[in-house]
Amino acid sequence: MILIGELINCTRKRIRAAVEAQDAAYIQQIARKQADAGAAVLDVNGGIAGRELECLTWLVDVVQEVTDLPLCLDSSDPAAIRAALKLCKQAPMINSITDEAARWNGLLPVIREHKLKTIALCMSDSGTPGSVEDRINTASRLVDRLTAEGLALDDIFVDACVMPVSAEPDGGRFLAEAIGCITARYPGIHTSVGLSNVSFGLPVRKLLNQTYLVLLMARGLDAAIADPCDEHLMRSIFAAEALLARDEYCASYLRAYRKGKLEPLAVAAS
Amino acid sequence: MILIGELINCTRKRIRAAVEAQDAAYIQQIARKQADAGAAVLDVNGGIAGRELECLTWLVDVVQEVTDLPLCLDSSDPAAIRAALKLCKQAPMINSITDEAARWNGLLPVIREHKLKTIALCMSDSGTPGSVEDRINTASRLVDRLTAEGLALDDIFVDACVMPVSAEPDGGRFLAEAIGCITARYPGIHTSVGLSNVSFGLPVRKLLNQTYLVLLMARGLDAAIADPCDEHLMRSIFAAEALLARDEYCASYLRAYRKGKLEPLAVAAS
Repeated sequence: MILIGELINCTRKRIRAAVEAQDAAYIQQIARKQADAGAAVLDVNGGIAGRELECLTWLVDVVQEVTDLPLCLDSSDPAAIRAALKLCKQAPMINSITDEAARWNGLLPVIREHKLKTIALCMSDSGTPGSVEDRINTASRLVDRLTAEGLALDDIFVDACVMPVSAEPDGGRFLAEAIGCITARYPGIHTSVGLSNVSFGLPVRKLLNQTYLVLLMARGLDAAIADPCDEHLMRSIFAAEALLARDEYCASYLRAYRKGKLEPLAVAAS
Repeated sequence: MILIGELINCTRKRIRAAVEAQDAAYIQQIARKQADAGAAVLDVNGGIAGRELECLTWLVDVVQEVTDLPLCLDSSDPAAIRAALKLCKQAPMINSITDEAARWNGLLPVIREHKLKTIALCMSDSGTPGSVEDRINTASRLVDRLTAEGLALDDIFVDACVMPVSAEPDGGRFLAEAIGCITARYPGIHTSVGLSNVSFGLPVRKLLNQTYLVLLMARGLDAAIADPCDEHLMRSIFAAEALLARDEYCASYLRAYRKGKLEPLAVAAS
């Protein structure tokens, strides 16, 4: 499982305040915590209106002072991405290209030029997909266009859109089914989700997020933008990988056990 | 999810001791606990060598004094099943018929005569199935034979064999895939598992059991023989049903929340 740490995101109040105050120590603390907790990549979102290039580049510098993990540049602004890319010590991921004309045209050149791994979010100019077929069709169109531009399947992380089940009751199972079809159609591709959206509007959100990740792993999901500091989520991932034969000899599971990471925890209620 | 409470089973030392001592109060306490925890059916296993008929019938009487839940008669002995059946206040399930000649020939007449719901365990005279195809083939043969004998798909609960991932690393995902294929091939059929076998030989078994149940629910599993008193397992089921649109308006999830069943719990380590 490729866990992309979600916490350094300017839509989160505490992060936004830290960015505005140039509080590098706080950002670095969050970066370290995510790295220590097992994130494979750190998402970095500097989306403060009108200041995105400045904020994103500052975040990239600050985060790279404390971790060697690759970053996931979370922006729809090609100028901000290009500026941040120059600072990256290793090739970053892009979050995200879509099938919307403006976004596609803006981001494709930089992705193609640097052969960057990218999240391909299944949104088009007609909006977010509804049915299983919608999701598969938008995903296929994105994948076919990206591979035609020279990207390898291994560089593409299809995100077929998590919707809150409180608003779209069938959205949870539709996405699960779509992920099963997409991974079968394109062997070697990655699929990813922005996990926490699924539980919006319902109580005990962490329980829903953790359970949904396991449901999607059963259909082939191998990446997620999520909170690596959620110990219950991480326990579920260790268990699911062992159960799905993605963890040879259950080695990671047993290592996590020996390190006390599977031990009794108090379950957080929200 | 049809949860079949597993606790009243003479292979468990404490239950066996209670049966041998005719300690009805203890058995009834376990029956009530499982009913209160949300079991839909109670498995009853009186398998003490040479005394199965006597033990099973005693258990059926004792359990029915305190609950109206249907029972699942867990025995391969047709005489014990027939004797217990006469005492059942409502039609029981049978656990389990297999494709082994002796067991098939022994149990089929009583299942057919009373049109009993039955677990169809995917074992044949050549043993337990290994690959996905093995599982699907044995399941299909059992289902086709049972429907030819007049059973409805709704009466059949295919159990395609849970194996310990510690011994058969691919067994976990093979079973998940087989369940997906079986539910697609036979719409309206049920699939069930004896859950806890998956975690045999590994630490923090409850975490593995709980995670595996969710993985299998993603592929269509709708029944399990498991411990309804495991609050973490039950929380996972509430969440998974809401996420898979098996819980209209998330009504059961929200009811469980209001009753405090999704609240913070200490996670048991084993």
